[in-house]
Amino acid sequence: MADSTATGDTTAQANIGVIGLAVMGSNLARNLASREGNTVAVYNRSAEKTHTLTSEHPEANFVASETIEDFAKSLQTPRTAIIMVKAGAGTDAVIDQLTKVFEPGDIIVDGGNALFTDTIRREKAVKETGIHFVGAGISGGEEGALKGPSIMPGGSAESYETLGPILSSIAAVAEGEPCVTHVGTDGAGHFVKMIHNGIEYADMQLIAEAYDLLRKVGGLEPAEIADVFTEWNQGELESYLIEITAEVLRQTDAKTGKPIVDIIVDEAGSKGTGVWTVQNALDLGVPVSGIAEAVFARSLSSHREQRDVSTNLPGPSNPWTVSEDDKKGFIEDVRLALYASKIVAYSQGFDAINAGAEKYDWNIDKGAISKIWRGGCIIRAQFLNRIADAYDEQPALEALLTAPYFTEALVRAQESWRRVVAGAAGAGIPAPAFSSSLSYYDGLRAERLPASLVQGQRDFFGAHTYKRVDTEGTFHTLWSGDRSEIEAVDTH
Amino acid sequence: MADSTATGDTTAQANIGVIGLAVMGSNLARNLASREGNTVAVYNRSAEKTHTLTSEHPEANFVASETIEDFAKSLQTPRTAIIMVKAGAGTDAVIDQLTKVFEPGDIIVDGGNALFTDTIRREKAVKETGIHFVGAGISGGEEGALKGPSIMPGGSAESYETLGPILSSIAAVAEGEPCVTHVGTDGAGHFVKMIHNGIEYADMQLIAEAYDLLRKVGGLEPAEIADVFTEWNQGELESYLIEITAEVLRQTDAKTGKPIVDIIVDEAGSKGTGVWTVQNALDLGVPVSGIAEAVFARSLSSHREQRDVSTNLPGPSNPWTVSEDDKKGFIEDVRLALYASKIVAYSQGFDAINAGAEKYDWNIDKGAISKIWRGGCIIRAQFLNRIADAYDEQPALEALLTAPYFTEALVRAQESWRRVVAGAAGAGIPAPAFSSSLSYYDGLRAERLPASLVQGQRDFFGAHTYKRVDTEGTFHTLWSGDRSEIEAVDTH
Repeated sequence: MADSTATGDTTAQANIGVIGLAVMGSNLARNLASREGNTVAVYNRSAEKTHTLTSEHPEANFVASETIEDFAKSLQTPRTAIIMVKAGAGTDAVIDQLTKVFEPGDIIVDGGNALFTDTIRREKAVKETGIHFVGAGISGGEEGALKGPSIMPGGSAESYETLGPILSSIAAVAEGEPCVTHVGTDGAGHFVKMIHNGIEYADMQLIAEAYDLLRKVGGLEPAEIADVFTEWNQGELESYLIEITAEVLRQTDAKTGKPIVDIIVDEAGSKGTGVWTVQNALDLGVPVSGIAEAVFARSLSSHREQRDVSTNLPGPSNPWTVSEDDKKGFIEDVRLALYASKIVAYSQGFDAINAGAEKYDWNIDKGAISKIWRGGCIIRAQFLNRIADAYDEQPALEALLTAPYFTEALVRAQESWRRVVAGAAGAGIPAPAFSSSLSYYDGLRAERLPASLVQGQRDFFGAHTYKRVDTEGTFHTLWSGDRSEIEAVDTH
Repeated sequence: MADSTATGDTTAQANIGVIGLAVMGSNLARNLASREGNTVAVYNRSAEKTHTLTSEHPEANFVASETIEDFAKSLQTPRTAIIMVKAGAGTDAVIDQLTKVFEPGDIIVDGGNALFTDTIRREKAVKETGIHFVGAGISGGEEGALKGPSIMPGGSAESYETLGPILSSIAAVAEGEPCVTHVGTDGAGHFVKMIHNGIEYADMQLIAEAYDLLRKVGGLEPAEIADVFTEWNQGELESYLIEITAEVLRQTDAKTGKPIVDIIVDEAGSKGTGVWTVQNALDLGVPVSGIAEAVFARSLSSHREQRDVSTNLPGPSNPWTVSEDDKKGFIEDVRLALYASKIVAYSQGFDAINAGAEKYDWNIDKGAISKIWRGGCIIRAQFLNRIADAYDEQPALEALLTAPYFTEALVRAQESWRRVVAGAAGAGIPAPAFSSSLSYYDGLRAERLPASLVQGQRDFFGAHTYKRVDTEGTFHTLWSGDRSEIEAVDTH
């Protein structure tokens, strides 16, 4: 092969291309280039980034182009290019450019963090040219892009025939299987990536609440809590997020000698995918309360002006403390509360996947989704094997927490969970995700909910009608009249 | 005046017109016609509804038209017409028709339940014709439309000069003041109406949770709980929703002799404005957790297939019961939990109004909003006077619950609130809105939140950086490197 790092070599020699060479794009290109059988074409709007990449990584033998036309010429057909630019208008601009130089049968992949409805729109538009468009969620951050991410491609099954082997070559590997699967058509991949991120918000918030309780109630120092998390990471909670939590809690600030967690300002930022998850779950009618409370907890933390005027609001007179003898039991209670709440968060997330699949007509294998999340991505966890088992055994499972494995876990956990939530409420320690998950759980298992009263109120003030438990039909009470009941014929 | 119920009389004699004569439109037209000084033009796409209205209500002296042209001719200038059609594409169609027959300076009012962003779009488009477009939220249902609703108009200040007196004439009156005010420009009225509905969801859910606890823990029968609500309605909880809750709980089903609340299927429906509120609050970064939990509680109640498979999930072994001696105290605890949670729900709702006003550049008088909600609408309550006082005293109040009146209420309520939330968690009774409100409250008043750990995790896996409590700037720890800290220059 000729020295392909020189630009201008336009023979079709690359089997895959990457457009957009910021950190994520560069790392993904290097990952691709490092795998047997791949020759990688690269292009960036400003040629400077391309030069930096090719000169810093001669081992990658990149085929670099300075124009989009040359980039297209450097690709073997069917041409396959992955766009790695910041999600938004820039993505549309690159797609426009590519559709002009690509041909029917070629494949454009958007590896950015696009909103799935944008992906649906783009796929529809690009398809008219005969070119395939694939929105692919890529999780794992910069390191994942370089060493092996979890990849969630949507788009047509036909495009996956070409794309699948390439993506499999660079994905993370979990228990021998590459962390990539064809999620479903058009926007399915970006939708599932969005839900992944929503679950990530919930998981992080739950861990934060566990830490807060261990510290404020258990009286443990950050380094001791780090040890607790390290221990938890040996068991059913084993996961990347638990592992890095221990790392963060163990870190000492060089400047002050204090734990870094006490030096970091307690305001959590976000990049919006949690908000997307909740907004879309609301559209789908799926109660993702654990994810929502996690999103709200971050925004609350950032409203410094409100927090500053609220610190004098009245709190409980009796603090909650744990004696030395009870400490071990308390820590185990918190662990089980975390585990139970986590089961709820994942159950809600998979409910959203179910509802999305139904609405958008995607055939999503939930067992396969759990498996590709076992490696490369932020929520990777041992736990996902249990979810895969549950869906493999019962693909039409109505609610994840009713799978035998999880129900058994809830039998073990629920009394601890209740003690923790009740204790936090009494002691004035905010545990919004723990308590919301428990409320959801108790709501789901309730024989009878007070929703009947809500529906009665709605019928009273808005004639919204109600159903009866003892007969078919829709009814309305003449509340402003003689209060007799009439059968209603869909008045709204 | 000639017999104006005959169609075809096209002299300009009406000072206000109504388009769309379903129940809401008909009632609003009758309300307008009943007020001194108004002559009301009416028009409906199908003439049949117009004939029904005019023949059933000759006392209204409607000026009826069969074409949109005649309708326009029947109106004095500046022509003012209120559109009362189902929100959506129908609204756009009617606006199109009207802009063709109206002239610059005329006023088109959309009195439907439009999403405020649609109203912003429509106002912008109509303004180019020189015609005013006013989106007006109208609350109070069919009865309110007839007898006096709470009206929340947006649009230009100029249009309100003509519109204000007309709307004032038909609005509900609370403590001598008509329940209407110029909320702000373009979509401000529909935005505030949306938040009103969101608060309504929270209020209803909180009442439902109070009922559920009184029944399942207190052991009270629905009729007894009705008496409790009637008593509560004499005090600081006095409100329309508390009043009608007592009515619903007192109602006996004629067919079975049982309380109607036991006959109504426990699945609560919704028409989507609660979902809009939460989705938009998420966009605005406002944690409206109480409203969100109420929306989720309704959707959970309707997932019958999931509820059916979940009733065997494990619950607590020890039920929560209250002795006869403790019953009075328990009821008072629930009342205070309801009151405190309600303060949080309204505080969150007004936070969303604040954030909306800032984003969309509206000058909203929050005291005036509380006042126009005191009559005609579903959330009308004595309580709103206290909110008006709070904002009149401190227009820039950061958080409603920090106003002295509400802080005093929270001093009285918070221990009861904690007992109720803790008890519900222990007893397995879902109280998502009670407990979410308490978590929010404890989050807001916390000196230190575990958000610092979340931000530390984000820096670990995504290099999202953090701020330090002891110095300016943005920092990143080299977690995969030597774990030293570097100052970051906006890497994301």
